[in-house]
Amino acid sequence: MKYNCIVAQSGGPTAAINASLAGVCQGVIDSDMYDTILGSVNGIQGVINKKFLNLSELAAKDADFITKLKATPAMFLGSCRYRLPDYNKDNKIYEDIFKTFEENNIGAMFYIGGNDSMDTVDKLSAYAASIGSDIKIAGIPKTIDNDLVKTDHTPGFGSACKYLATSIREIAYDTFIYALPSVTIIEVMGRDAGWLTAASALARNDFSPAPHLIYLPELPFSTEKFIEDIKQVQKKYSNIIVAVSEGIKDENGEYISSTTAAADKFGHAQLSGTGKCLENLVKEKLGLKVRSIELNVLQRCAGHISSLTDLNESFELGKKAVSLTAEGKSGFMTTINRISDSPYQTTLSYAPVCEIANLAKDVPTEWISPDGNDVTEDMINYLKPLIQGEIENTFNDGVIEYLDISHLFHEI
Amino acid sequence: MKYNCIVAQSGGPTAAINASLAGVCQGVIDSDMYDTILGSVNGIQGVINKKFLNLSELAAKDADFITKLKATPAMFLGSCRYRLPDYNKDNKIYEDIFKTFEENNIGAMFYIGGNDSMDTVDKLSAYAASIGSDIKIAGIPKTIDNDLVKTDHTPGFGSACKYLATSIREIAYDTFIYALPSVTIIEVMGRDAGWLTAASALARNDFSPAPHLIYLPELPFSTEKFIEDIKQVQKKYSNIIVAVSEGIKDENGEYISSTTAAADKFGHAQLSGTGKCLENLVKEKLGLKVRSIELNVLQRCAGHISSLTDLNESFELGKKAVSLTAEGKSGFMTTINRISDSPYQTTLSYAPVCEIANLAKDVPTEWISPDGNDVTEDMINYLKPLIQGEIENTFNDGVIEYLDISHLFHEI
Repeated sequence: MKYNCIVAQSGGPTAAINASLAGVCQGVIDSDMYDTILGSVNGIQGVINKKFLNLSELAAKDADFITKLKATPAMFLGSCRYRLPDYNKDNKIYEDIFKTFEENNIGAMFYIGGNDSMDTVDKLSAYAASIGSDIKIAGIPKTIDNDLVKTDHTPGFGSACKYLATSIREIAYDTFIYALPSVTIIEVMGRDAGWLTAASALARNDFSPAPHLIYLPELPFSTEKFIEDIKQVQKKYSNIIVAVSEGIKDENGEYISSTTAAADKFGHAQLSGTGKCLENLVKEKLGLKVRSIELNVLQRCAGHISSLTDLNESFELGKKAVSLTAEGKSGFMTTINRISDSPYQTTLSYAPVCEIANLAKDVPTEWISPDGNDVTEDMINYLKPLIQGEIENTFNDGVIEYLDISHLFHEI
Repeated sequence: MKYNCIVAQSGGPTAAINASLAGVCQGVIDSDMYDTILGSVNGIQGVINKKFLNLSELAAKDADFITKLKATPAMFLGSCRYRLPDYNKDNKIYEDIFKTFEENNIGAMFYIGGNDSMDTVDKLSAYAASIGSDIKIAGIPKTIDNDLVKTDHTPGFGSACKYLATSIREIAYDTFIYALPSVTIIEVMGRDAGWLTAASALARNDFSPAPHLIYLPELPFSTEKFIEDIKQVQKKYSNIIVAVSEGIKDENGEYISSTTAAADKFGHAQLSGTGKCLENLVKEKLGLKVRSIELNVLQRCAGHISSLTDLNESFELGKKAVSLTAEGKSGFMTTINRISDSPYQTTLSYAPVCEIANLAKDVPTEWISPDGNDVTEDMINYLKPLIQGEIENTFNDGVIEYLDISHLFHEI
């Protein structure tokens, strides 16, 4: 007898998370063990609320469904930010979830997300083991933050890097036109890890050194040193571009950002305004023409400039998760191992999700320049393969066209 | 004897201003009357400082120069924001400029810019007439604001619209994933004219009504009405997208953005943008999850998503200016006349620059919905042809590649 599967997405969107979903769909279609793939709408909450989309049906109806899904950014199944309780203290919700699994003849559940989402995979697979259930629970990584451990990099990161590098190069062109000295501060997403901010270095080319300065959250940020750094760069360049992580902190661990950081559901600080804060500082200390630019959510949803390498890897990680559960594995996250930077070679593997959930991978300090205001060549060699290749966009009436996601519109 | 020409660019950048420059170069190359085309670096200031690039030489050295130039955003020749004095009061600078023209055997000067730049064209051509000079002075329009009179629309506007529509659609995908009700406010460039903000309507498609609300600066903005509008949309949609011009003003003509100020970490008052201001308002009045996004300079420099229609028209307007000066005309700006929306048909023409300089064209109120929170079908029919067609981008090592502009790096 064949089993059905459930797949869900959780956390913040990326340009590649639907590519992993497409990979899971393809994996199930190709599998001898699995029959229907159900999409749980809004993460694990879709299982709890029994809100499913029949993805097998959608794929059967539209021969291009999987191809279109692969190139659609954000989350076709919607997201949630829901944390399961400890099942030793409160197992009611687990009983409900596994009852729904049974009712739907579920053999495996795939959860695509970041380190918070891997906590859900960890708890569900541990609970399954505790009750002797044979249902497999698998994690598939995604996050533009690239901060998951046990994998060389994460799906969605490469596309965010490609958007960032292209946008910063274009902002540099915009900036260089004026004879007047100026500073442009670009605030990049990444609360605690500076991976994405580091990728701003990819905007440089033979003639343009922009961004001239790069600050990651892994090292304490000194406003005095920052002003000194700008003065140094000013000796050579008139229009200066600075890339800075939204999460930079001072030597006491306080966020530089001007607004009071409120905590989100998981206890993470919600930041905004780091660039604005530095803009005001430069204005006050140097009296220069200065502008700050917050690249905001487009870093994670600008699907029209996705990295082909990223989408392909994300797809394969989804497929791999299906084949691993079919082999009987559970409680893992699929991973990418890098063999070499150039030529870029990788293999796909997996690691126990309990060694991944709730952990974060910082940028190693040896990949930050000794001065703390740039990244090293090793970092650039690591990043460069991840942004290679472009996708073919579909435009309709002049605007980018993606899969219909109106099933996510929520009734009031 | 053949004459040489000068071309310069002025004002803020667009994705299409280099396409007009490429058109001027092509026009001069094709012309029997003109020989060398000199690029004045940093607008009219390049003429004053005798800082020229020999564009004929660059085009001769690289067969792809004009094609690459056409697709490079911002300004290959750099910009300036320089206003010539009234020559009746102070003609010294005019004497210097025309001496430089004579020294370089200049027959025509082409100035690509917005309504401020057309003031320079107006003054130089009037001065030429006053001294009996035969040197022709021509204007070529550009501005993402689309606020020049006497032309159906302006080069650069269509590309900005295309970027805006695609970005808002992608932001909508990012927003729709959450089950939690939310408001996302997108602040669009355009201080006084709402043309670009109106183009946010192009992000809509068969299933997505985002942006649900659109506010232009042509009508007074009421914060009370805004909150009521959101409440109305909330009856039907959970995740609401609002597009708002940076330049909206209250009924007293005060910018909405000037009404709030917060203190940053360093204790300084921080002027918020319009979007941030409305974000705080929604948070306070409705207690909803709310985010504001300032699309910033990428609206005018995101060359990778230029409108092919826009680049082609911009190129032709540059060529047209050359042929008009060769016919003996001066003191004009090239213009686009629309014959029909669908099929989209236009002719190129020209108008006296004295009827254009320093004037601005607002959005007609009949193209704003009676409720003041949307645009009409007529507006959409006007906008749609301008974003049609895509360009072929060149990527190098995963990042968009444009012409080398290091000649704009300014010595300190």
